[in-house]
Amino acid sequence: MKIAIINGPNLNLIGVRERNIYGQRSFDDYLAELRTRYAFELHYFQSNSEGAIIDELHRTGFDYDGIVLNAGAYTHTSLAIADAIRSITTPVIEVHISNVHKREEIRHHSMISPACTGVIAGFGLDSYRLAIEAIIAMKHDNTK
Amino acid sequence: MKIAIINGPNLNLIGVRERNIYGQRSFDDYLAELRTRYAFELHYFQSNSEGAIIDELHRTGFDYDGIVLNAGAYTHTSLAIADAIRSITTPVIEVHISNVHKREEIRHHSMISPACTGVIAGFGLDSYRLAIEAIIAMKHDNTK
Amino acid sequence: MKIAIINGPNLNLIGVRERNIYGQRSFDDYLAELRTRYAFELHYFQSNSEGAIIDELHRTGFDYDGIVLNAGAYTHTSLAIADAIRSITTPVIEVHISNVHKREEIRHHSMISPACTGVIAGFGLDSYRLAIEAIIAMKHDNTK
Amino acid sequence: MKIAIINGPNLNLIGVRERNIYGQRSFDDYLAELRTRYAFELHYFQSNSEGAIIDELHRTGFDYDGIVLNAGAYTHTSLAIADAIRSITTPVIEVHISNVHKREEIRHHSMISPACTGVIAGFGLDSYRLAIEAIIAMKHDNTK
Amino acid sequence: MKIAIINGPNLNLIGVRERNIYGQRSFDDYLAELRTRYAFELHYFQSNSEGAIIDELHRTGFDYDGIVLNAGAYTHTSLAIADAIRSITTPVIEVHISNVHKREEIRHHSMISPACTGVIAGFGLDSYRLAIEAIIAMKHDNTK
Amino acid sequence: MKIAIINGPNLNLIGVRERNIYGQRSFDDYLAELRTRYAFELHYFQSNSEGAIIDELHRTGFDYDGIVLNAGAYTHTSLAIADAIRSITTPVIEVHISNVHKREEIRHHSMISPACTGVIAGFGLDSYRLAIEAIIAMKHDNTK
Amino acid sequence: MKIAIINGPNLNLIGVRERNIYGQRSFDDYLAELRTRYAFELHYFQSNSEGAIIDELHRTGFDYDGIVLNAGAYTHTSLAIADAIRSITTPVIEVHISNVHKREEIRHHSMISPACTGVIAGFGLDSYRLAIEAIIAMKHDNTK
Amino acid sequence: MKIAIINGPNLNLIGVRERNIYGQRSFDDYLAELRTRYAFELHYFQSNSEGAIIDELHRTGFDYDGIVLNAGAYTHTSLAIADAIRSITTPVIEVHISNVHKREEIRHHSMISPACTGVIAGFGLDSYRLAIEAIIAMKHDNTK
Amino acid sequence: MKIAIINGPNLNLIGVRERNIYGQRSFDDYLAELRTRYAFELHYFQSNSEGAIIDELHRTGFDYDGIVLNAGAYTHTSLAIADAIRSITTPVIEVHISNVHKREEIRHHSMISPACTGVIAGFGLDSYRLAIEAIIAMKHDNTK
Amino acid sequence: MKIAIINGPNLNLIGVRERNIYGQRSFDDYLAELRTRYAFELHYFQSNSEGAIIDELHRTGFDYDGIVLNAGAYTHTSLAIADAIRSITTPVIEVHISNVHKREEIRHHSMISPACTGVIAGFGLDSYRLAIEAIIAMKHDNTK
Amino acid sequence: MKIAIINGPNLNLIGVRERNIYGQRSFDDYLAELRTRYAFELHYFQSNSEGAIIDELHRTGFDYDGIVLNAGAYTHTSLAIADAIRSITTPVIEVHISNVHKREEIRHHSMISPACTGVIAGFGLDSYRLAIEAIIAMKHDNTK
Amino acid sequence: MKIAIINGPNLNLIGVRERNIYGQRSFDDYLAELRTRYAFELHYFQSNSEGAIIDELHRTGFDYDGIVLNAGAYTHTSLAIADAIRSITTPVIEVHISNVHKREEIRHHSMISPACTGVIAGFGLDSYRLAIEAIIAMKHDNTK
Repeated sequence: MKIAIINGPNLNLIGVRERNIYGQRSFDDYLAELRTRYAFELHYFQSNSEGAIIDELHRTGFDYDGIVLNAGAYTHTSLAIADAIRSITTPVIEVHISNVHKREEIRHHSMISPACTGVIAGFGLDSYRLAIEAIIAMKHDNTK
Repeated sequence: MKIAIINGPNLNLIGVRERNIYGQRSFDDYLAELRTRYAFELHYFQSNSEGAIIDELHRTGFDYDGIVLNAGAYTHTSLAIADAIRSITTPVIEVHISNVHKREEIRHHSMISPACTGVIAGFGLDSYRLAIEAIIAMKHDNTK
Repeated sequence: MKIAIINGPNLNLIGVRERNIYGQRSFDDYLAELRTRYAFELHYFQSNSEGAIIDELHRTGFDYDGIVLNAGAYTHTSLAIADAIRSITTPVIEVHISNVHKREEIRHHSMISPACTGVIAGFGLDSYRLAIEAIIAMKHDNTK
Repeated sequence: MKIAIINGPNLNLIGVRERNIYGQRSFDDYLAELRTRYAFELHYFQSNSEGAIIDELHRTGFDYDGIVLNAGAYTHTSLAIADAIRSITTPVIEVHISNVHKREEIRHHSMISPACTGVIAGFGLDSYRLAIEAIIAMKHDNTK
Repeated sequence: MKIAIINGPNLNLIGVRERNIYGQRSFDDYLAELRTRYAFELHYFQSNSEGAIIDELHRTGFDYDGIVLNAGAYTHTSLAIADAIRSITTPVIEVHISNVHKREEIRHHSMISPACTGVIAGFGLDSYRLAIEAIIAMKHDNTK
Repeated sequence: MKIAIINGPNLNLIGVRERNIYGQRSFDDYLAELRTRYAFELHYFQSNSEGAIIDELHRTGFDYDGIVLNAGAYTHTSLAIADAIRSITTPVIEVHISNVHKREEIRHHSMISPACTGVIAGFGLDSYRLAIEAIIAMKHDNTK
Repeated sequence: MKIAIINGPNLNLIGVRERNIYGQRSFDDYLAELRTRYAFELHYFQSNSEGAIIDELHRTGFDYDGIVLNAGAYTHTSLAIADAIRSITTPVIEVHISNVHKREEIRHHSMISPACTGVIAGFGLDSYRLAIEAIIAMKHDNTK
Repeated sequence: MKIAIINGPNLNLIGVRERNIYGQRSFDDYLAELRTRYAFELHYFQSNSEGAIIDELHRTGFDYDGIVLNAGAYTHTSLAIADAIRSITTPVIEVHISNVHKREEIRHHSMISPACTGVIAGFGLDSYRLAIEAIIAMKHDNTK
Repeated sequence: MKIAIINGPNLNLIGVRERNIYGQRSFDDYLAELRTRYAFELHYFQSNSEGAIIDELHRTGFDYDGIVLNAGAYTHTSLAIADAIRSITTPVIEVHISNVHKREEIRHHSMISPACTGVIAGFGLDSYRLAIEAIIAMKHDNTK
Repeated sequence: MKIAIINGPNLNLIGVRERNIYGQRSFDDYLAELRTRYAFELHYFQSNSEGAIIDELHRTGFDYDGIVLNAGAYTHTSLAIADAIRSITTPVIEVHISNVHKREEIRHHSMISPACTGVIAGFGLDSYRLAIEAIIAMKHDNTK
Repeated sequence: MKIAIINGPNLNLIGVRERNIYGQRSFDDYLAELRTRYAFELHYFQSNSEGAIIDELHRTGFDYDGIVLNAGAYTHTSLAIADAIRSITTPVIEVHISNVHKREEIRHHSMISPACTGVIAGFGLDSYRLAIEAIIAMKHDNTK
Repeated sequence: MKIAIINGPNLNLIGVRERNIYGQRSFDDYLAELRTRYAFELHYFQSNSEGAIIDELHRTGFDYDGIVLNAGAYTHTSLAIADAIRSITTPVIEVHISNVHKREEIRHHSMISPACTGVIAGFGLDSYRLAIEAIIAMKHDNTK
């Protein structure tokens, strides 16, 4: 089993930026904890570049069991990432740390949701774990 | 620990209605399985009436540990349910069986998301289990 | 043969309310006349509650030959009733006493039309009879 | 008694065009059947030209008992036809073969509905017969 | 003289819910005070159900001298309540505890205002007393 | 000097149609009066067809001194007539009998105004005479 | 105690203008009656100029107990008056003689409501008295 | 016979400002010419202030035979001037020097047109003369 | 092989009208050149009438190999032409002489594009030749 | 060298009003400091009246070297001020004390920006000094 | 002669991705065929990065004879690419494999069309060849 | 003291591209002049890539005294850059060479303005110097 976590723009600053929204724990610490929890491969990638995120979706999109994608602000502006998700075969779960619907209007609409399998938002860093749990359950269902 | 699951309009027909969207398993079977899985109280309520859902939110909204709410079509039209969620103290998780963003335009906007703690959509009936997991984690965090 | 007539909010006041729009004859008189005209069962239900109308659609939606639905103001606001119509197997005919398109803007758009088989509007109480005629013809066609 | 049926653009191709929407029976056959059914004069006119339809509405709009109008795509774009309907004294019934509300967005709004007496849509070719029945009833009411 | 006060969804929680908006005094206390102040009958009704509010408007809408209606969130979404107000003969005064125009966008538009006699908003619970004063003055004017 | 008057759809019914808007005098009588008043050629054309109006604009658009155009409902829907006006060299004056801005919303926007030299609306049939006066003055200015 | 009444554009014509909307009694008569009723100072100011109204709000906005403002048409267009209300410390009550929500669309939105303490509309000239009553109650509450 | 000409903001600069739009002749010269042409009183008023224009409309609005109003930019933003026009009895003709529909989008919509008797735009300074001619004809019609 | 070229409103004036947009060469000359270039039948039709264009689409729409359609202004307003294209079996290529996206907003949206096989715009008269080349290639592909 | 500073509505209250937005220093103090800093004439004008601001723009608009304009709320509603700026020859710099884009939606759009030379916003009172510096540099460039 | 072909995001997956839309042939095969067909230089570049596409437009934008650009999803979202096209001197032809107007709403609007010379869409991979033919013809015209 | 200047897409072509908008002087020359003028460090960075600009904002966003950002077209489309600005502590000044409000509609709205400290637009290259002056003044204020 292999799952990729892809983080978009500014998410390299988690723990630095706007702490009232994203909390104060660094993503690296959280990732280490997740890797301790799960026996399988947890690939991690972060970029501030839309193109690099698309490249990574292409790279992991055909033989991973699932992709957990927090596209940050590109969630709301990138049709190209949505197209990338549609062009691969691995299921993609959209996650958000904060409940985007409590924030400004522009963050209420997601360009990528219609291309994803499912959406999980608002549970802080725990959103990532829930997405991994969802992928495990999907895999289990398909292999029954 | 006590968690309430509240289902809105037409969700009494799960397994009967539009099977290509909601799948073919009945909600009763699924609920029984959930109750087997979790040791604590899982209260269940379904109604086709907006008013009755508000009444139930008031009833369970002050001493339960969490509410898993699938408001069905009221998700997209009911400001009154959103107000009810804001007027109670129990955290409410919005869930959807299907990925509503893949369906018609009107289902892309949720009236209740800004009032909820988080949103989980698109994982079939497993969305409910993931919401329960999220509530357990939230409780665990708060009681640390 | 069994046909159900379901009337929505404020239609209990036909003959009392805004007579310039709905005419002065009571619905009870009209219903009696329809029952005299047709040999088969004509079930009648009226409620001011969205939830009760959904319940009734579920109750009559699987073994009646047709439903004649005047959802009143819910026509323009209720996605939940539209979902109920989609979740049942009986064909539903949307009727309106007045030509809603001659009234205010908000009444020009129907939430439920896309879920119904057909629409008949503007013929006064005669809209109901025309809907019954349409159901009879549909049944006749299917049983040929 | 004299009733005119006026068909708008592309309706000369009924039975040829997009059969999944309009069915496979030709309008000529159907018209013959209608003429057999009703003893009175049933005038028929079809044109692909907005101007010619207006001319015909003027011609039949003062001494016929009713006009059954399927304005095809002009339903959604022609204010001039709506004006023509308003400028004549014969009642006009708007009909559609398909339930236009199930089709693309642009077909959900009718320019001519506010000018017509009533609307009947979604019953296949039977929509025309129902419109004739409505006109007969209206005449009957007025002559009582 | 008879006046009815009708409160809509979530207003049973006044004094519990979002105190920064609605204040901390319970509606029961306030109602007792009003009844002490005025010699005539002050009927009170609260429901979270749109249908039940319509039923109550029908019940009190023909022989009361005035209705003070705080429709809560239904103010902004219910065309059916607006229709109910139009279908009765008793004048209805729309009241709001808070100044709804200071809150979110969706609360800036009222579905029911065009159907009411007048609107009073933003004076805390005192809005209800002012509405009663308005009804008394209207009655006085009409009976002069 | 040669001036053309072009009338669009339904204007053949002036004096018959919606008298509260257009008045009760027939256009023929008015035209005769205009021809008595002015010594020069006053060409008149009316059609209910958008294409025929474009043809006439092409025919008169290069050697007449001015065109007085009342495009009726096509004013609000015809980009093709606007293009025809732009493609000819004769100045075109847009006229309306009624003040279109007092009527429904759709009549507040003109597709052809930006292509015309000027607009005169709201003076009853006298709008045509004022347009002719404007053309005479324009000619006088240019030939000074 | 000192209360200012400020009337905006065209309100100097009350009793002359559009009587079906504003009634036939002159404002001067009404003001005299109010001054008889209340023992305290009732300052009155009317202007057709947006700037003069702002000047007056500045003049009375720091030591009066309340301002009753009917900004007339500026209600719907003046952000500058809204800013003036926000920049002073005296509470401002927005009043309207007619129920503005029954009139044209543009009058359904108020630029100044979000800046005011409360809104009273639709009670004829009695709206002013109700506003004064509201200010008295507010003062009473604050001085308890 | 008495006619008032009222010019709004920036029209004092005609002949100075944006000559490609308004031409190079000063309004004073033109007014002198008009006064030579017509035997009756031609009152002239110009102001850059919305309030002063309203005051002038009130002053001339009850005993003049007509008002020729070029409200300049206030045409597109002033509901208060529209209300002033509605509140007087003298007919008001809206004029524009340029064809406003050829300019920016915001100038395509007039707030005051629905309140005026008629509109004349695009004929340079000659628009004023045409408006005077229209008023003369209206007076002639009424006194026949 | 047979290809039809259909030109819509005002395109009979190519070489006369707005030369900065459409160039100065007449369409007849260009057509002669095309006929010299291609050995097969090149049928040509032009009309300013929407109805006549629909008639021609019906006439050529079942046995030609392709239709090159420049619908002029009807491109942006005619749902009826779009319906005609959908109702025939011959592939239709939408062409424009100018790049419509560089012109006014209204020309950025095409009603007929979704009904056509492809779109070619902005190459001057060469757009027609490119469309013919596209049809030849399509035919070649299908007959391989 | 001569520069005019023109302040619009409510800016006479700087230091009094909404201090969290505009800061606590009075404009008079700041102006004195500016006059100390610059050797040339610094003309100052403030008015709450749109018309008076237009008058002042006309007065200073032809022989000053630059105008620094903070139109306050009129920035967002006054087309007449924008027209005044276009009708004069002196360059006008739009300034704002606060960053208007951080405030409510209506303040994100400026009516006057397209008419001004440049815009400076968000630097507190220092915005005025920066505008003066910009004018000095522009003058220097032009006189090189 | 030198022509550049630039492909945007996800177009590296042609033949893999959503075959029902883009067909099953790889772009490499197609490119080889094009290079066989044309004697001149055919430069090819593909990137998923908006910035890299802009860099390439700058690199080829001054000495190539034409650029064939399929910007993929960036077509609909990238103003920066449109600016890059405007900032270079080589003509750019926008191409699309599918008829974008048959797909979702967001793909009906192109940010880059107004900056391009022309648009070719809907002919499968043959769109690229047609664009090359168009460039050859343009060059031929210019060098005549 | 350290200030960073960050230029976005296509700004590497200043002096080449659309000279009527951006002027003809190269940015390198201008930068050299700025460095001569100011004694402190002036860091310069340009990229056509959204991601690279975000990276640079992160790099300079915590220890520089100010950032002067001309994000070019990304100003209007990039929520990710806005988020980057919000996530750093250095104040960011948005600058534009041209007055963007005089250009096309899409350039009237800035995604990044609400995240910046202030905005300076329309002064040609001098906009950068003014931004530096603003940062110096801000620093001076904070260190007083």
